[in-house]
Amino acid sequence: MLDTPPGYQTLTEQTLTDFLAEDESNAKLLGGKPSDWKINEVGDGNLNLVFIVRGPSGGLVVKQSLPYLRLVGESWPLPLNRAFFEAEALAAQWKHAPNLVPQVFKYYPKMYCIIMELLEPHIIMRKGMIDGIEYPQFAEAITEFMAATLFETSDLAQDTHTKRAGVKMFSGNDTLCKITEDVIFTEPYMEHANNRWTAPYLDDYAKRWRDDKDLAVGISRLKQKFLTCTEALLHADLHTGSIMITKTDTRVIDPEFAFYGPIGFDVGKLIANLIISYFSQAGHEQQPGERDQYRRWICDTIIQVWNGFRTKFLERWRNVQSVNAYPNALFEGPAGEAALEAERIAYMDALFTDSLGFCGASLTRRILGIAHNIDLENIADERQRANCEARTLEVSRLLLTNTSGCTSIDDVVALLERQHATKDCF
Amino acid sequence: MLDTPPGYQTLTEQTLTDFLAEDESNAKLLGGKPSDWKINEVGDGNLNLVFIVRGPSGGLVVKQSLPYLRLVGESWPLPLNRAFFEAEALAAQWKHAPNLVPQVFKYYPKMYCIIMELLEPHIIMRKGMIDGIEYPQFAEAITEFMAATLFETSDLAQDTHTKRAGVKMFSGNDTLCKITEDVIFTEPYMEHANNRWTAPYLDDYAKRWRDDKDLAVGISRLKQKFLTCTEALLHADLHTGSIMITKTDTRVIDPEFAFYGPIGFDVGKLIANLIISYFSQAGHEQQPGERDQYRRWICDTIIQVWNGFRTKFLERWRNVQSVNAYPNALFEGPAGEAALEAERIAYMDALFTDSLGFCGASLTRRILGIAHNIDLENIADERQRANCEARTLEVSRLLLTNTSGCTSIDDVVALLERQHATKDCF
Repeated sequence: MLDTPPGYQTLTEQTLTDFLAEDESNAKLLGGKPSDWKINEVGDGNLNLVFIVRGPSGGLVVKQSLPYLRLVGESWPLPLNRAFFEAEALAAQWKHAPNLVPQVFKYYPKMYCIIMELLEPHIIMRKGMIDGIEYPQFAEAITEFMAATLFETSDLAQDTHTKRAGVKMFSGNDTLCKITEDVIFTEPYMEHANNRWTAPYLDDYAKRWRDDKDLAVGISRLKQKFLTCTEALLHADLHTGSIMITKTDTRVIDPEFAFYGPIGFDVGKLIANLIISYFSQAGHEQQPGERDQYRRWICDTIIQVWNGFRTKFLERWRNVQSVNAYPNALFEGPAGEAALEAERIAYMDALFTDSLGFCGASLTRRILGIAHNIDLENIADERQRANCEARTLEVSRLLLTNTSGCTSIDDVVALLERQHATKDCF
Repeated sequence: MLDTPPGYQTLTEQTLTDFLAEDESNAKLLGGKPSDWKINEVGDGNLNLVFIVRGPSGGLVVKQSLPYLRLVGESWPLPLNRAFFEAEALAAQWKHAPNLVPQVFKYYPKMYCIIMELLEPHIIMRKGMIDGIEYPQFAEAITEFMAATLFETSDLAQDTHTKRAGVKMFSGNDTLCKITEDVIFTEPYMEHANNRWTAPYLDDYAKRWRDDKDLAVGISRLKQKFLTCTEALLHADLHTGSIMITKTDTRVIDPEFAFYGPIGFDVGKLIANLIISYFSQAGHEQQPGERDQYRRWICDTIIQVWNGFRTKFLERWRNVQSVNAYPNALFEGPAGEAALEAERIAYMDALFTDSLGFCGASLTRRILGIAHNIDLENIADERQRANCEARTLEVSRLLLTNTSGCTSIDDVVALLERQHATKDCF
């Protein structure tokens, strides 16, 4: 058993009722008597305990840190304080993007436990995409989430004291940062016990990824940026498995990896997971072409995600009274405004390049690294799955080595469509 | 009177004897009886109290934070904890570059006071350079200092936990970071009460600097990097006034601005202050050309500073078993080593570009901003001083707007010599 601090105990369906009943606000929200409350443990994630509690008047979610990685067990200890960082990140995100994350009702520091809004009838977006469900409101919502949370926590909006205090706090989330550094930016490019892939089909790809030194340079430049850039408070695990969704509502969950990092990491990871869904569709078709329209929807969504994010980020920048990065006082008058506007565009262009690189990194790690996506894993036919994965890896390589030639998001979609049209490898 | 925490009181020549006598180690180092100790307050800097204490057996330096900016007074409060950050930085620097900083004997947290090695017969390098003194050992020492402290605190050498703990600690030095952000990266490019210059000669330059939007963009890009890049633990005020020197020994002092920032800021600031000395020499000549040989020495030193830093930084990188940024495991074998070596060179090239930008920023701020250098201020003839300053500003502008065309340090020196040969403006 791992040591835990005084006041912490792992909740069970049995002990949770008493824990909730101790706090009047929970009892009021749930209604009725504690014996009326229905509790289900639903944590299908890799890290934590998650309970859904329903009472006569309402429901709530309880998320508690375990002192180890749930996916692996006690042999991989993890700091309990990731719940603290998640609660802090959710609060910051709610402040800047209200109603786009679950509302936190209360954080219990000694129990490393968050009580939050129960989202119903939301499902994990990745599951919906496997089923070919279109989400017409998604692009609008996620671009607002990204633009609001990333812009407002950057030096373009925050004064230096607030920003450096944020960096100070989230620098304590180093153990979760290290997981990302290892499993995304290092292990897939070397021999490592954590790695797995669809063997034997992808054996040659895995070897090529270890041998290709352009990939080693590309991924290391991105890692260096991940290690040294504190551009904004990131969600830092922004993929379709971290989004709860309906046709009319989008909520981003699980920001326990949050830290101050490069903006392109959030943007690129999200686009990567849309790309994985795109290439995985062939594995979910009963007959070729059946999901053509859904692929079209994904492509349109990818375009809307970048363009919408860019437009909204720029809008916020144009309207902010910045006193820190690019202070308004240096850009007064028509010549100043013109120079600043040109610089804003250049900034977004650089961010696009960053995002494509991090997108490439996020593609490879889901196919050759430790953590895979059910978009692909659910494809039972391994040869078919490997074909989907090989196409994804080809795109990943072009993005990681900055040889895709993509200078716009339309170029990226054209690349996906060309890759989709290639013959099967296996 | 500003509030100060319990246990803090400003030391005076009267109270310092008792304070030192309370600690046996100080008494032992000084020797004799407390009444034998000679105390002089010598703080000619802008921020703190500095006492030199001599006893029969030895001497020491006492440096204590004041709760305000000494240069301005109580109207500009400053956090006492800058002494804590200075003590921490000195300890880190001593660890990586022993004998290139004063040794810290003890830090007294409640008094915000550092007891450290007395450096004798060292003088402030800037004063020596005004007198035209050559320091043959300087380039060797300062390049070792920079390469050791900057490489060893970067992600190339530190594991992520150590690095992020360092970022966390030094993020608390935000008030001193903000001074730099304001006085270097903002105020000289706008109308601000803090600014001053050699009027009326430089009035047109000051106006041009406020109106030129290429400069506004250039300085803002550098500020953005200063705000968001945690590449290594910087000294962060590395100029010739922060160096105590003899012909055979070099020590870097006063790292109270220390924080995790972009490496080019330390390198560029140092080179900028050598450039200021270069252009100021004309104001210290009795007749034109008298200091030609000394200018040659400065140019040689500038070349040695960059080349020596580059060589030593690369040497450390080639010999480190890096597990974090650019992990060795990704670059095994001859192809891996070749790719990594090419990337090391590319990294140093990017660092050179960064350094030139920060050099440009450090030139302008000493001529149009709040804090000026005695290199120039000591030139009594204002017309002559303005001519030196105008040449410096022309170089500053080329570097800030990235239009100097300099791709090597030799190019930089050639630029200085061309600029020196131009006709006087005034």
